[in-house]
Amino acid sequence: MSAAAAELGATFPTVTAPDAKVLGDAQARQRELTKPPGSLGRLEDVACWVAACQGLCPPRRLERVRVVVFAGDHGIARTGVSAFPPDVTAQMVQNFRRGGAAVNAIADSVGAGVRVVDMAVDGDLPGADSRASEAGAPEAGAAIPANADADPVRAYKVRSSSGSIDREDALTAAETIAAIGAGRAIADEEVDAGADLLVAGDMGIGNTTPATAIVATLTGLEPVVAVGRGTGIDDAAWMRKTAAIRDAMFRARHFVGDPVALLRTIGGADLAAMAGFLAQAAVRRTPVILDGLIATAAALVAAQLAPGCADWWLAGHRSAEPAHDAALERLHKQPLLDFGMRLGEGTGALTAVPVVRAAVATLSNMSTFADAGVSGAAG
Amino acid sequence: MSAAAAELGATFPTVTAPDAKVLGDAQARQRELTKPPGSLGRLEDVACWVAACQGLCPPRRLERVRVVVFAGDHGIARTGVSAFPPDVTAQMVQNFRRGGAAVNAIADSVGAGVRVVDMAVDGDLPGADSRASEAGAPEAGAAIPANADADPVRAYKVRSSSGSIDREDALTAAETIAAIGAGRAIADEEVDAGADLLVAGDMGIGNTTPATAIVATLTGLEPVVAVGRGTGIDDAAWMRKTAAIRDAMFRARHFVGDPVALLRTIGGADLAAMAGFLAQAAVRRTPVILDGLIATAAALVAAQLAPGCADWWLAGHRSAEPAHDAALERLHKQPLLDFGMRLGEGTGALTAVPVVRAAVATLSNMSTFADAGVSGAAG
Repeated sequence: MSAAAAELGATFPTVTAPDAKVLGDAQARQRELTKPPGSLGRLEDVACWVAACQGLCPPRRLERVRVVVFAGDHGIARTGVSAFPPDVTAQMVQNFRRGGAAVNAIADSVGAGVRVVDMAVDGDLPGADSRASEAGAPEAGAAIPANADADPVRAYKVRSSSGSIDREDALTAAETIAAIGAGRAIADEEVDAGADLLVAGDMGIGNTTPATAIVATLTGLEPVVAVGRGTGIDDAAWMRKTAAIRDAMFRARHFVGDPVALLRTIGGADLAAMAGFLAQAAVRRTPVILDGLIATAAALVAAQLAPGCADWWLAGHRSAEPAHDAALERLHKQPLLDFGMRLGEGTGALTAVPVVRAAVATLSNMSTFADAGVSGAAG
Repeated sequence: MSAAAAELGATFPTVTAPDAKVLGDAQARQRELTKPPGSLGRLEDVACWVAACQGLCPPRRLERVRVVVFAGDHGIARTGVSAFPPDVTAQMVQNFRRGGAAVNAIADSVGAGVRVVDMAVDGDLPGADSRASEAGAPEAGAAIPANADADPVRAYKVRSSSGSIDREDALTAAETIAAIGAGRAIADEEVDAGADLLVAGDMGIGNTTPATAIVATLTGLEPVVAVGRGTGIDDAAWMRKTAAIRDAMFRARHFVGDPVALLRTIGGADLAAMAGFLAQAAVRRTPVILDGLIATAAALVAAQLAPGCADWWLAGHRSAEPAHDAALERLHKQPLLDFGMRLGEGTGALTAVPVVRAAVATLSNMSTFADAGVSGAAG
C-alpha cells in the first residue's frame, strides 16, 4: 500500500458537533419540568446531551444499545505482563459467544446487544469450523477483507496476535489501515442496523500494556505512574510490564502527533479497530459511552484521527487503572460511575446505560409546570 | 396514649443481620466466575450483599422494586425557607398520581413501581372525592387509622401539615407513634405484596429543614455547615432556614438518644413514617436503597429505633445537600452514584436500581472458569 493510500484509509470526514440549537431547547425544557431547576444534577446534562446528539427534543428512548467487543492478542503477553495465560483471550471469545461472560450478563440486565469481533486473536478460535485454517491476515493492500471467513466473528480478523511492542511494531502499515477500516465498517454496520448508542469493549490478555503505553505517550505520563495491576499482577509482573511500557514508549516517541503510526508501533489490531469504531460513530452522529482503559486509550487516538469526535462520547466509569484517569482528563470527561471496575469487555460503560436512559426518561416523560398545574419557584 | 403504649408502638423486633453464610458463599462464587478476581469492583460487593439479604446464592433477580413517596407539609415552610410555595406539595402529589413527576419517569425507566402516601399534606388534596372533608388527623390514641379515607393515598394521613419546628413540636406524641406505625404498616404491605427491594422517597416543601435539623442534631454538625440550598433558595432564605434549624436544634438538644422524641419535636409525620418504613423493611429482611437527605435523615433515626437495620440498606447516591454527607458517614455508607441530585422523591435511589440489578446479574448468570473451559490466573 502506498503512503497516500494509507493516509486516505485513515482519513475521516469532518465530524460535526451535536446540535447546539436542540441542546438549547433541551436546557430550556429542563427549566419547565416539574422539579426545581437543576435538581436532577448531572442527569439533566446527560439528557440534554442525548437530545443534542439525536437532534431531537424531547429525545427518543435509547432502544438499540450495542456493545462491540474487540478481541485481540498481544505478543507482549508472552513476556509475563498479565496474571492470565494468553490462551484466555480465545477462551473468553468462546465464552462471549455462549453468553457466559460479564459483558453478556450486564448487557442482558441493561437491555443491550453484544457483538464480538476477532481482530487479532492468536491462532484459530476453538470451535471454529473447517474453513478456519484458511483464515489469516488480509493481503497487504486490501482495505477490509470482504468475507475472509464464514464466521462473522472473524470477518475482520487482521492477523494472529499483534507484535510484541517492546521490541517490534504491533502491526504493519497495511494492517493498521485495515484494522482502522474494520472498526469504521463495524460502526457503519451497527448504525445502519439501527443502533442509537454504542459501546466499544475489549478482550485481550496483555492489552493494558499497549493501552497504557498509548495513554502515557499521548499524555506525557511516566510509566511508573501510569502502570496498573491489570488483571491482578504481582510485583515482579508489574516490573516487567513497566519495563515493556517504557521500551514501547521509547519506540513511539516520535509519533505523539501521528495516530496511525502510534497504533502501528505500540497499538494493536484491536486498539486500531476500536479507534476507527469510535471515530466513525461520531461521523455517523451516534452517541457512545466510553468504557475503561483500553477503550479510552483508543478514544485518545480516535480524537486525533477525527477531531471533534469526543463531543459524541460520554465517559461511563472510572476504572481502577491509573492511566485511565489521565486519558479521561485529557478528553475532559467526568465519568458517570466510579466502582473500581477493571474488567473491560465494555462492562463499565454498559453499567452506565440505564443512568443515561433514566436521564432521557425525565426529559422526555415528565410534565411541565404548566401541564401539571404545579406552581413554579417564587420570584 | 400512655407513655408505655407510646414506647411499645415504636418498639421494633430484633433485626437480624443478612445471612453471613450466604455472603461467604457469594464471595467464593465471585472467585469462580470468568473474570479476574475483584475486577468488577464494587459491583461484586453489591451482588454479594443482595445474596446475603435474600439468603440465596446465586441471588434471584430483583423483580419487584417499589418506591413509596411519603408526602407531608411542614409549618416551617410558611416562614420562607423554600424557593417554592407550600401549595406545591399537594400539587406534586397529584402530579405523582398522574405519572408526570421525575420519580414516575425514572421508576418507569428502571422498572419500579411508585406508591404515594399523604402523611401530612396541608388540607385536602385537589381532586379528592366528596369524603375528603371527613378525613383528618386520627384520634389521639389510635394506633393507625384503619380506613380513614377511601382514597388509599390518604389512608395513613396523620394530620394536616406538621408543626413549625422552630417554635413548636412537629407532632403530638400520639401522632408520632401513629406515623411510625403507618410506615411500618406500609413496609409490611409492600413486602407482603412481594417487594424484593424498597425505596423511601419524599415530597414536601420545606422538608430539608427538619431533615437537616435531625441530621445536625444526631451528628453534632453546626447549622451553618449543614444547611444547603434545598430546592434552590437565595441568601436571605438560606439565613432564615439556618436560623430555623438552629432554633429547632435547641429545642431538640436533649433528645439525641431518644428517636421518638426527636421525631416529635423537630421531625414530622412524613419523616416519622419513613423511619418506621426503613426500620420495618429490615425487620422483614428486605433490602433498601437509601435516597437523599430526607430519606437518610429518617434512616439515622430508624437506626436508633431498630439497631442493626442499617445492614439492610445501600446508599443509592450522594446528594448536593451538605447534611447528606454527614448522615451517610454516620451510617458508614458509601453512595453508589454521585450526580449532584437534590430532588428527593426517591429519584437518586431509583437511578441506582439498575446498577444493583447488573451486579446481581453477574453473580447469577456468569459462567464459572470450570464451566466455560477458561484458564484461571497463573500461580
